[in-house]
Amino acid sequence: MKGELNPMEANFMENLNLTIDGNRLWNRLMAFGKIGEGDNGGVTRTSFDQKDIEARKFFLKLLEQADLSPYMDAAGNIFGQIIGKNPELPAILIGSHLDTVNSGGRFDGAMGVLMGVEVLCTLKEKGIQPERTIKVVSLTDEEGARFDYAFVGSTALVGTEGSGKLKENLAAATDKDGNSYLEAMKQASLEGEYFNEINPDLLEQAQLGKNDLKAYIEVHIEQGKVLENKDLAVGIVTGISGGEWAEVTIMGEAGHAGTTWMKERKDALTAAAECIVAIEKIAQDNIGSVATVGKLEVKPGSSNVIPGRVDFTLDVRDISNERREKTVTQIYHSIRTIAANRGLGCEIRQVQSLSSVMSSPIVMKAVKDSLQELQYPVYELPSGAAHDAMVLGELTDIGMIFVRSKSGISHHPDEWSSFEDVALGCEVLFRTTLKLL
Amino acid sequence: MKGELNPMEANFMENLNLTIDGNRLWNRLMAFGKIGEGDNGGVTRTSFDQKDIEARKFFLKLLEQADLSPYMDAAGNIFGQIIGKNPELPAILIGSHLDTVNSGGRFDGAMGVLMGVEVLCTLKEKGIQPERTIKVVSLTDEEGARFDYAFVGSTALVGTEGSGKLKENLAAATDKDGNSYLEAMKQASLEGEYFNEINPDLLEQAQLGKNDLKAYIEVHIEQGKVLENKDLAVGIVTGISGGEWAEVTIMGEAGHAGTTWMKERKDALTAAAECIVAIEKIAQDNIGSVATVGKLEVKPGSSNVIPGRVDFTLDVRDISNERREKTVTQIYHSIRTIAANRGLGCEIRQVQSLSSVMSSPIVMKAVKDSLQELQYPVYELPSGAAHDAMVLGELTDIGMIFVRSKSGISHHPDEWSSFEDVALGCEVLFRTTLKLL
Repeated sequence: MKGELNPMEANFMENLNLTIDGNRLWNRLMAFGKIGEGDNGGVTRTSFDQKDIEARKFFLKLLEQADLSPYMDAAGNIFGQIIGKNPELPAILIGSHLDTVNSGGRFDGAMGVLMGVEVLCTLKEKGIQPERTIKVVSLTDEEGARFDYAFVGSTALVGTEGSGKLKENLAAATDKDGNSYLEAMKQASLEGEYFNEINPDLLEQAQLGKNDLKAYIEVHIEQGKVLENKDLAVGIVTGISGGEWAEVTIMGEAGHAGTTWMKERKDALTAAAECIVAIEKIAQDNIGSVATVGKLEVKPGSSNVIPGRVDFTLDVRDISNERREKTVTQIYHSIRTIAANRGLGCEIRQVQSLSSVMSSPIVMKAVKDSLQELQYPVYELPSGAAHDAMVLGELTDIGMIFVRSKSGISHHPDEWSSFEDVALGCEVLFRTTLKLL
Repeated sequence: MKGELNPMEANFMENLNLTIDGNRLWNRLMAFGKIGEGDNGGVTRTSFDQKDIEARKFFLKLLEQADLSPYMDAAGNIFGQIIGKNPELPAILIGSHLDTVNSGGRFDGAMGVLMGVEVLCTLKEKGIQPERTIKVVSLTDEEGARFDYAFVGSTALVGTEGSGKLKENLAAATDKDGNSYLEAMKQASLEGEYFNEINPDLLEQAQLGKNDLKAYIEVHIEQGKVLENKDLAVGIVTGISGGEWAEVTIMGEAGHAGTTWMKERKDALTAAAECIVAIEKIAQDNIGSVATVGKLEVKPGSSNVIPGRVDFTLDVRDISNERREKTVTQIYHSIRTIAANRGLGCEIRQVQSLSSVMSSPIVMKAVKDSLQELQYPVYELPSGAAHDAMVLGELTDIGMIFVRSKSGISHHPDEWSSFEDVALGCEVLFRTTLKLL
C-alpha cells in the first residue's frame, strides 16, 4: 500500500512525530474506497444514488462512533462537531465531499472529509476543548456527475438568493434516466434517521449566516502534477479557478444514412464535431484557459441514421476571470456561427458560472506557519480544479491545502496519493486548525 | 389519412381498377405502425426486443388468418406461402422487414412485407394456384439498430461460409446494455410456437440453395426525394449501393477537466470530433459517396472529466464499388493519422462490407411491363439505401420497386407515403409477380 519514499522524505517521516493518527486516517480512507468500487477499481458514488446513500450512512456511523454529534441539513450536507466553550463564536469548518465522478478515484473528496474527522478525533483524544466550535462537513454533490449540476451542498450553505435559484436549478436538473434532482432528494429523505432532514423545498434552512463561520478549510488532492514535479508532498493553495458550465444543443434533421446526399444533410453531429474542434482551438489559444466537452449524446443514435440532435456539456476554467470570460464569449460565438453556417439550430444554456476565489491570507499564514513548524518547504500554487471552497468563499474566509497526486491522475481509478503524503497533509491541517481556533 | 392528389393522379386513380385491395393493405400497415409507437409517433421495433416480438406474433396471426401456412426459420425469418402446383420449381420470394430504427417510420420495411401478404391474399381470392410456390418473408433485423449489425435474416438465407462468419459476428454483437445477439435470439426462441425454430447455433439450417428461388422482389419506400421531384408514385430500382460499416474506438486518457492543461491532454472526444469533420469532408469530396457517423459514445461521460475513450460507428455507401473503396480507404487513413498525431490509440473494426448489386433485367422488365399495362410512366433510379435485396443478390435474381416518400424523410416519425402511392405500388408488385410465376 505504501509508496516508495525518496531518502529525504524517508528521513523526514522518521523524524516526524505526527500528532494525528496516520494509520487510522488511511484505513478509513481505504474503507470508503470500497463503497461504490467497480471492477476496474474505480469508485462511483454519484449524488443520492445507492452508493452515495451507503457512504452517507457509513459516514454518519463513523461520526456517531467518534462522538462527534452528527446532523444533516436540508441540502443533505452531513456535519460532525465539537461544541466550543464559547459556541457563539464563529466556528471553524473543515470539509470536502464524499461523492465521486463516474469511475473516479478514492482520494478526491473523501480524503478531505476524513482528514476533518481525524482532526476532530485528535482534538478529542488530546482533551482539547476549543473556545470556538469546530465542525467537519461532507458537502452534497461537489462533482455534479449524475445531474450535471455541481456544488449543491456548498451553494445551499451560501444560500444565494435565499436558495431560490438553487431550487429552480435543482428542479430543472435530471439524470440520464430522466430522474429529477428534487425527486432524488425526496427519495433520499425517506432513508430514515438524519436523512429525514433533507428537504429540497426548504433549502433556505441550510443557509449559514455571515457570523456562523470564521473560516472554511479544505484539504484536497492536487489533481495535477505541479507538486510531483517539485518533489513536494503538500502545497498551499493561493486561489481557485473560476468556471463556466453550460449545456449545448445542436438541432439538425434526422435522415437516412444511405439516401441523403452530403450537401442535403443537416447533420447535428458533424456540426457538434466542428464545434468541439473549435472549442479546443480557442482554449489552446487563450493560454491559461481550459475547456472540456465531457458528455455528449447523439439522437436518435442509430448507426444508419443521420443524427438529428446532439446535446453536449461545456466546462471552461481559468484563474483569471477576465480571460475566462473572453474564452467563453469566443466559444459561444463560435458555436452559434457554426450552427448558423450549416443552417442548423443551436441552444446554449448556462448552467453555472463561478468567479475565481482567492484564499484568505489568515488561513494561508496558518498553513505556512504549520509547514515551517514541521520544517517542511513552503510552496504556493493555484487550483485549476473547482472546489466547494470556491463557493464558500462568498460566505467566509477560505483556505486549501493540496496533497501531491501521483502522475497528476484524478477522476480515474488510478488516482493515488501516498500514505506519507496523506499523513503529512492531515498533520498540516491539524496544526493549521489549532492556530485558527 | 389520404394525401392530396394532383389532377393527373386523381384522374389516374379513378380510372384504375386495382386488382389488390388497397384499403386492406393500408389498414394493416397502420395497424403495424401502432406496435412500438412512441409519444412522438415514431415507431421503435429493434431486433428481438419486446415490440419486435409483438410484431412477429401479430404477423404470424395475420398469416394464419390468411391461410398462408406460416413458418419461422433458425434465423427468425417468418415466411407465409402458397404452394405451387409444381413445388419443385424455384419459388418467387416477396419480402422486406418488420424491424425499425429507433423512433423510425411506419413504412420502411413493414410496407414491403404487407404488400407481399396482399399479393398472396389476392392470388388466393382469385383462385389462382400458381405453377411455382410463392412466398412472402419478413426478414430478421434489416436495420441493425439494436446491435449495430444488420441484414441478419437475409445473410442467413444466403448462408455465407456456412453461416460461420455470421455466427461469429452475432456472438460478438451486443446492444447498449451489453446483451449479446445470441442471447437475445435464444430468449426469443422461448416465446412458444414458431419461435422455437429460432436457433442461433444452427443458422445453416436457414440457408437456401441456388435452385430454391427464381427471384426475390422487394417494394420499399424510396427514402429520398427523386420520385417526389419527378412527380411519380413508383419507380424501378436499377441497383443498390454497396456499403461499408465499421466501429471506431479512439483511446485517450481520462483526466480532470480543471487541472489538465490543454497541451497535456489526450482527449478522445476532440480527436473523434476531428475525425468526424474529416469524414464529412472526404465524403463531400468524393461526390457519389455518403458517409455517416450515427452513433457515438463518450467514456467516462462526466461533464468535468476529459473523455478517455470514444466509440463511434461509420456507415459509407456508394453505388460505385470502386469509389466506395476509395472513400473508405481515405477515411481510415485519416482516422489513423489524426489519432497518431495526437498520440492517441485507435482501432477500426470492419463490421460489414457489401458490394453494390444490380437488379435482374428479368425482374426489371416484369416491373416495366406492369407499369406500361397500367399506362403509368416508367422511371428507373438507383437505391442509395441498402436493402435485404442487396444481400439476396448473391443467391438469386433480385428486383425492387420504390414508392415515393414524402419530402424524402425516412428513419423518422414523419416518414410518409400516400394511400394512393402505396396502393399503386402494390398493384405493380402484384402484376410483376404474375409475370414471373
